[in-house]
Amino acid sequence: MADEAAVRAQAEAVRRLKQDKADPDEIAKEVAKLLEMKAQLGGDEGKHKFVLKTPKGTRDYSPKQMAIRERVFNVIITCFKRHGAEVIDTPVFELKETLTGKYGEDSKLIYDLKDQGGELLSLRYDLTVPFARYLAMNKITNIKRYHIAKVYRRDNPAMTRGRYREFYQCDFDIAGQFDPMIPDAECLKIVHEILSDLQLGDFLIKVNDRRILDGMFAVCGVPDSKFRTICSSVDKLDKMPWEEVRSEMVGEKGLSPEAADRIGEYVQLHGGLDLIERLLQDPKLSQNKLAKEGLGDMKLLFEYLTLFGITGKISFDLSLARGLDYYTGVIYEAVLLQQENDHVEEPVSVGSVAGGGRYDGLVGMFDPKGRKVPCVGVSIGIERIFSILEQRVEASEEKIRTTETQVLVASAQKKLLEERLKLISELWDAGIKAEVLYKKNPKLLNQLQYCEETGIPLVAIVGEQELKDGVIKLRDVATREEVNVRRESLVEEIRMRTSQP
Amino acid sequence: MADEAAVRAQAEAVRRLKQDKADPDEIAKEVAKLLEMKAQLGGDEGKHKFVLKTPKGTRDYSPKQMAIRERVFNVIITCFKRHGAEVIDTPVFELKETLTGKYGEDSKLIYDLKDQGGELLSLRYDLTVPFARYLAMNKITNIKRYHIAKVYRRDNPAMTRGRYREFYQCDFDIAGQFDPMIPDAECLKIVHEILSDLQLGDFLIKVNDRRILDGMFAVCGVPDSKFRTICSSVDKLDKMPWEEVRSEMVGEKGLSPEAADRIGEYVQLHGGLDLIERLLQDPKLSQNKLAKEGLGDMKLLFEYLTLFGITGKISFDLSLARGLDYYTGVIYEAVLLQQENDHVEEPVSVGSVAGGGRYDGLVGMFDPKGRKVPCVGVSIGIERIFSILEQRVEASEEKIRTTETQVLVASAQKKLLEERLKLISELWDAGIKAEVLYKKNPKLLNQLQYCEETGIPLVAIVGEQELKDGVIKLRDVATREEVNVRRESLVEEIRMRTSQP
Repeated sequence: MADEAAVRAQAEAVRRLKQDKADPDEIAKEVAKLLEMKAQLGGDEGKHKFVLKTPKGTRDYSPKQMAIRERVFNVIITCFKRHGAEVIDTPVFELKETLTGKYGEDSKLIYDLKDQGGELLSLRYDLTVPFARYLAMNKITNIKRYHIAKVYRRDNPAMTRGRYREFYQCDFDIAGQFDPMIPDAECLKIVHEILSDLQLGDFLIKVNDRRILDGMFAVCGVPDSKFRTICSSVDKLDKMPWEEVRSEMVGEKGLSPEAADRIGEYVQLHGGLDLIERLLQDPKLSQNKLAKEGLGDMKLLFEYLTLFGITGKISFDLSLARGLDYYTGVIYEAVLLQQENDHVEEPVSVGSVAGGGRYDGLVGMFDPKGRKVPCVGVSIGIERIFSILEQRVEASEEKIRTTETQVLVASAQKKLLEERLKLISELWDAGIKAEVLYKKNPKLLNQLQYCEETGIPLVAIVGEQELKDGVIKLRDVATREEVNVRRESLVEEIRMRTSQP
Repeated sequence: MADEAAVRAQAEAVRRLKQDKADPDEIAKEVAKLLEMKAQLGGDEGKHKFVLKTPKGTRDYSPKQMAIRERVFNVIITCFKRHGAEVIDTPVFELKETLTGKYGEDSKLIYDLKDQGGELLSLRYDLTVPFARYLAMNKITNIKRYHIAKVYRRDNPAMTRGRYREFYQCDFDIAGQFDPMIPDAECLKIVHEILSDLQLGDFLIKVNDRRILDGMFAVCGVPDSKFRTICSSVDKLDKMPWEEVRSEMVGEKGLSPEAADRIGEYVQLHGGLDLIERLLQDPKLSQNKLAKEGLGDMKLLFEYLTLFGITGKISFDLSLARGLDYYTGVIYEAVLLQQENDHVEEPVSVGSVAGGGRYDGLVGMFDPKGRKVPCVGVSIGIERIFSILEQRVEASEEKIRTTETQVLVASAQKKLLEERLKLISELWDAGIKAEVLYKKNPKLLNQLQYCEETGIPLVAIVGEQELKDGVIKLRDVATREEVNVRRESLVEEIRMRTSQP
């Protein structure tokens, strides 16, 4: 059997033969021997030699990260429930053809499963297409639901900025034929509530409408066939200056410079009701049926948002163009304006944290008779929010508890394991969150330290004398005060001392 | 354009030409025309022609199913937290090699992802192997955690019996070097608590130990090389009578009839502390080191279970053999004994609803230096529990609410949409769960019906006179009583009336 020393010796021998310009055949023979030894060595250690990691673009959540994640989910779910949403769930994968033709160019980012016989499957890319499939399959024409689940994109991960290949989406959607802009306004109210409740600092919700974009392209002289590609250029305006976007339109996409310049004038506009009114009077736009419809609805939307008192953080922005194919009306996207917390040394550059819009045609693509179910919804992007909150927690040195244990059952003397187990069993059965060290004879100091480390506020100490007296010593970890509590009152005492204020 | 009638006519023409044995060239031309027409037809309708379904062995969860699912999760999570567990999460897929060599014959059931360039990935098969990978990767030697997530097995689905290809596992595990059987006993206490809290009817937790099994095989004269395959035969005893298992051992697996008969005597034994004591005196078993160790620990386990007061539902059962390769000590499995609910017409045949055991070697398989971290854990199989509870809910005609909405904001007259939106916005901002119909002028009757259907207990009715008087009419849906409440007291009044008892 080869060991590492033997391999090194053989490598040295080969090196010397080469240095001495020995007979090539001899060198070849010794090299072969070296390679065989190396292979043997690899074979021996091979069983431990794989890479110990999670797949690219994914991560584990530690208990501390989970604690933060649950706080965020809690805010979001509370908001969704406040708005009367039901909840559904769908499988992590769909038939491949269910996803086909829904995402335009992004389809290349879909994870496919290996063909192992049977159906061809893909991991879900978002929660919207599975939702539409669910509606069509169950002939549901009317629902308000949320869905929180992981989605999968073979994108370039940028994990420090919260961009993963496996990430959560928190979706809220309203499906059904209703009077215009009422559900749409509620979606924006929800984004406003969640971003306010999460206290992430200042934010802005940009709003536009696919019909206004299309009308604008038409009156600017963009040929019908170029609407989609020009729209995807406009979508880059949040990352590129206008000049670059313009040269992409003219240079790469063959748009006339005049048309590009006309677009340039529009896409720099943003504002509120006043801008909408102005554009409704715009001699060109007001002649376009689609744009006029879109602007009319935008006006209605802003009236409702005024009633909700949230127009201060909403901007009608003609440069907002969102990539996905399936939008048909209002679209929106929320961005964080800055890092509010100064303690963070390197502020994370976070972009969009929520987005959505109206997609009235998607369910019809699944319905055998093409019956349409109008839908509008919003998706909250949690990972970026996690990144910010994680950094903030780290910077603040806030201690996050990862368990809810109320009391540790301990003993001061040896040979009391059985008494500890009897007591903890009583506490568990009474619904008290309790732990015990898995040692026969743990030292009291170690038991107290465990409480300090994990934030357990109380210790119930079993002792021989106390057992005789029918009491348990209850210690407050923070104040170090100890009192004897009658065993039959212990549960009540623990409850009282650990009840949330 | 082809329509179906034209295609049928063309097919008929081709049929006649063939029947008349016409010129082959002419037939070929007409066949080509037919194929083209068919293709056209397919192309027209193709966009709606895929199958509208979820992948084989998976399902969506409707809001009603989600409500049941959340009840079950709530019981389980409450129990895990009561025992001081932290929570973690891992990605839905792992590097393929992480799963390799952990599941024995069952490896063929693993879902692989398509090789799209980059790493080779597989969907997780359980939560235990990812947990072990997580411990080794983060050099954690001491943790008590739970993990609730979906796992994936390309098994034969039997969905009415709760067997799916995508299903939830709820795992609780204790990792660390501790005094024997204390964590193991806690795992069994947890199973006992959860199955009691879920009120699923009578249950039994079978317990055995890999070391007792191996010792038993040795003293019965099973050759070392056949331990595993004979073990998997024993594992079938819950579904097959002993005679069949015996003939599999002797016929297919080549075990001597004498050895099989000796096994047969042991595997029919089950009991409690008395049986353990008897086997500790068994002249053959007591000579086997492994069996003796296993029986000694089993005795200790039963002593702890006695302190927990749960031996009544625990059976030391020598026929329990669980399939997975990685167990090294105690193993257990909980089964429901019968359908307690008589209303269910066709009682679902449910088997195991929880299982687990000790796996002291698994983390070491991932550690570069093979360092071991002893682990013991339990996995609750939710899907079967869901099946039972779903059937029970259906049979009982219990009305399950799928939202938590406290109040519907309604109006009795037309033209009050804006007032409704203003009021609901106030309620949302005060944390009240409220809905409004997305209609400009909904009929009061429709609004009241919506409450009846969805279980909303209160209606806040906006009316012109009330607006002038600064009040809102609050209606109790169940009693139909109406009172005027001052607008500034409305939030308090709704809270009071809908607070949980």
